[in-house]
Amino acid sequence: MVLLSKIATNDGHGENSSFFDGWKAYDSDPYHPTKNSHGVIQMGLAENQLCFDLIQEWVENNPKASICTPQGSNGFNDIAIYQDYHGLPEFRNSVARFMEKVRGNKVKFNPDRIVMSGGATGAHETLAFCLADPGEAFLVPTPYYPGYDRDLRWRTGIQLFPVVCESSNEFKITRETLEDAYEKAQEANIKVKGLILNNPSNPLGTVLDKTTLRDAMSFICEKNIHLICDEIYSATVFDEPGFISIAEIAEESSVSKHRDLIHIVYSLSKDLGFPGFRVGIIYSYNDAVVNCARKMSSFGLVSTQTQHLIASMLSDDIFVEKFLDESAKRLAERHRVFTRGLAKVGIKSLGGNAGLFCWMDLKRLLKEPTFEAEMELWHLIIDEVKLNVSPGASFRCSEPGWFRVCFANMDDETMRIALQRIHKFVIQKTGLDQPMTRKQYKRSELEISLSFRRLDEFIMTPRMLSSPHSHMTSPLVRART
Amino acid sequence: MVLLSKIATNDGHGENSSFFDGWKAYDSDPYHPTKNSHGVIQMGLAENQLCFDLIQEWVENNPKASICTPQGSNGFNDIAIYQDYHGLPEFRNSVARFMEKVRGNKVKFNPDRIVMSGGATGAHETLAFCLADPGEAFLVPTPYYPGYDRDLRWRTGIQLFPVVCESSNEFKITRETLEDAYEKAQEANIKVKGLILNNPSNPLGTVLDKTTLRDAMSFICEKNIHLICDEIYSATVFDEPGFISIAEIAEESSVSKHRDLIHIVYSLSKDLGFPGFRVGIIYSYNDAVVNCARKMSSFGLVSTQTQHLIASMLSDDIFVEKFLDESAKRLAERHRVFTRGLAKVGIKSLGGNAGLFCWMDLKRLLKEPTFEAEMELWHLIIDEVKLNVSPGASFRCSEPGWFRVCFANMDDETMRIALQRIHKFVIQKTGLDQPMTRKQYKRSELEISLSFRRLDEFIMTPRMLSSPHSHMTSPLVRART
Repeated sequence: MVLLSKIATNDGHGENSSFFDGWKAYDSDPYHPTKNSHGVIQMGLAENQLCFDLIQEWVENNPKASICTPQGSNGFNDIAIYQDYHGLPEFRNSVARFMEKVRGNKVKFNPDRIVMSGGATGAHETLAFCLADPGEAFLVPTPYYPGYDRDLRWRTGIQLFPVVCESSNEFKITRETLEDAYEKAQEANIKVKGLILNNPSNPLGTVLDKTTLRDAMSFICEKNIHLICDEIYSATVFDEPGFISIAEIAEESSVSKHRDLIHIVYSLSKDLGFPGFRVGIIYSYNDAVVNCARKMSSFGLVSTQTQHLIASMLSDDIFVEKFLDESAKRLAERHRVFTRGLAKVGIKSLGGNAGLFCWMDLKRLLKEPTFEAEMELWHLIIDEVKLNVSPGASFRCSEPGWFRVCFANMDDETMRIALQRIHKFVIQKTGLDQPMTRKQYKRSELEISLSFRRLDEFIMTPRMLSSPHSHMTSPLVRART
Repeated sequence: MVLLSKIATNDGHGENSSFFDGWKAYDSDPYHPTKNSHGVIQMGLAENQLCFDLIQEWVENNPKASICTPQGSNGFNDIAIYQDYHGLPEFRNSVARFMEKVRGNKVKFNPDRIVMSGGATGAHETLAFCLADPGEAFLVPTPYYPGYDRDLRWRTGIQLFPVVCESSNEFKITRETLEDAYEKAQEANIKVKGLILNNPSNPLGTVLDKTTLRDAMSFICEKNIHLICDEIYSATVFDEPGFISIAEIAEESSVSKHRDLIHIVYSLSKDLGFPGFRVGIIYSYNDAVVNCARKMSSFGLVSTQTQHLIASMLSDDIFVEKFLDESAKRLAERHRVFTRGLAKVGIKSLGGNAGLFCWMDLKRLLKEPTFEAEMELWHLIIDEVKLNVSPGASFRCSEPGWFRVCFANMDDETMRIALQRIHKFVIQKTGLDQPMTRKQYKRSELEISLSFRRLDEFIMTPRMLSSPHSHMTSPLVRART
């Protein structure tokens, strides 16, 4: 081992985190409805599998989109040999247009600023290599996606410095918490090079409002540091308030002269549900960063076979519109069923309107308010309830008792079984002998107003046709898996 | 710019090298047979375009290999969401088997040691990150592929220390030159962590013999350093002596206890001609390196759409055998036509039997034996002859006057025009008023024995049917472009 590098021999990859441990537990005993009905249900994977039927239908109707069909194979040669790090022009154009559509056509993206990377993983690392030297730091609000440690820190040698957010104000990022983190870094003699915002947030499932974005912008302008906005969940917003991209702020006149501090990370892994295709995107307003990141993209170019397919698919306006609309509807419905299922046994969750997961509050199931107790509860959930959920500690959450639960990577029936298991577990743990009656449930709803504030708004929106209490029996869309 | 990292602001990427400058010259004035017949012909790109007809035929006959055909689309979901860094099992299996076939089935590869990367570019960087810390060095025989500076050094901070090889012994790597380089590095207080061998060699177009491989192996064992073998051109060997992989040496009993110092870089960009698909492979005999490299592969995974296609294609034994056989034949024929075309105006080249290029000796066209004169000649070739060839300096060659010329990225007609331009240029420069007569040519052949030693052997092999003097008129395979 001494012959290997420090990077190879330290544990900077973070695979020992409980976030990844849960995956291993799932891998060794995966649930299957008939073959392993007592296995672990995977709720630790933020995958979007609810609209594959639409994608598959499109693929079947568009054989020319592939270079491996009789209709498309005459393009094979040109596509297979294309290795320019700029990417196929039609790919960059269609991705730029798609990013605009996802943002309600309120902003413009210049295809010449679209840089490819190996998923968002590669995009983050590339930006870290471009923007900071080893030892320098980015501020990151907690809780944050565990993969950031691998993506941003591992091979670059930079640090992530936490901006501590708390449940008392719904984990909002305030100017004070930003200033506080910046000062603490300075006290520790750490040079801060940027701030990372994840909007919509993984694991919170919430979006940033305009005030927060403007505050963050003025903060980074004042400190003269970079702003990386990770917007990989932008098309998973399924309810009001809508998504506001940093690109909207970038177009405000007050920001224009600082625009080159802004860099967006995007991907098609979550919004379209294609993590295997490894389509990561860096969109920077900084010319030098665009140029450097493009050179670095040689380490993680998108396969031209995939570029070609994506270019065709995303330039089909009718399909894209239908997909975005239907995807939001199905995510909303899934979220509604899941959070109301939790509420039925008194489990609160943060009011979210985006993402493929919710941020579940199990504080009252902890033996004591410590991360040891959180870990103990998590092992119980994995080992006995047989659900792989992800503990807050793995997201660097400052308060024990929160868990991220993914709900879009399974079909309706699996979701129903997961909820049944949760119900049974909570009833055992709390002494409730059965799920709450409608009356109890109503009382509980008041108590857990945090959880339901957004949910109530959501229930009132006209697009939800089914009654809020018919969630266990309503005919849900069956997702293909 | 001060806000960016040192990596972003230094010129470690090496894009300012004349190697890349030539590409820019081509890009701004590309040759086209009808639309721009006086444009620059691209001979700076080591692409294998001679067998695309075979690939296209296979693709059309195998619609199930694609997830974007009616026959294959029911696999779309499973493939699109697969993001495990181990890769699809059928992909790893088929790549391992393919690597064995390319090596004449003389060695075995374990699919569990196959690690994906974003092309050979990503494979090299990953190994550098795994094996060495910033400031430490790998030894690399010169001349070497200019991209190594980007791949191995740029973001890792490691150094490349030259092992100086010379034309006096056909650029062979000897134990003495290895020892000499190692000592020089030690004198400069640089810790050597490994040796990189490129076999077959880019730019030389030659293969390493068993003695050289064993010498290198005993050298690295003695020094206790790593051996990275870049074998990305292994299936481009088109003539005797055949290719000997380091994997053969690794299986020798004397080496077994040092096997974990050996790491192979592979790719499908050259051997199959799919650079756009970004299929890079690391095969390491070291468990810790396999594990670490696999974690790093998250930054450059192969698109599962592409993994799926490759798995199907490479597991078709009949196709693979036909492809390897036909590809070698076509490369041999192309090499024969090109090198004899050069010889006709007295241009020598190193006797090669592999690769997509030859290493051309233009020393006698230099004004003086300096790299300034080489650069001057190169500009003349780019600007007046309108050929993008790559000067030896960009390969860190120790002697001025050598140029790499690629011959497999164009069709026969373009090759003929390139040779015409070379003929015209050399005649002007040297005062020859016409290409040599057969008699002169025969004399010249003796003179440039270096160039023809291997070529003569080659001409004698039974698989070459056409007469050695019919090269300008023989009906050559027309490659698709």
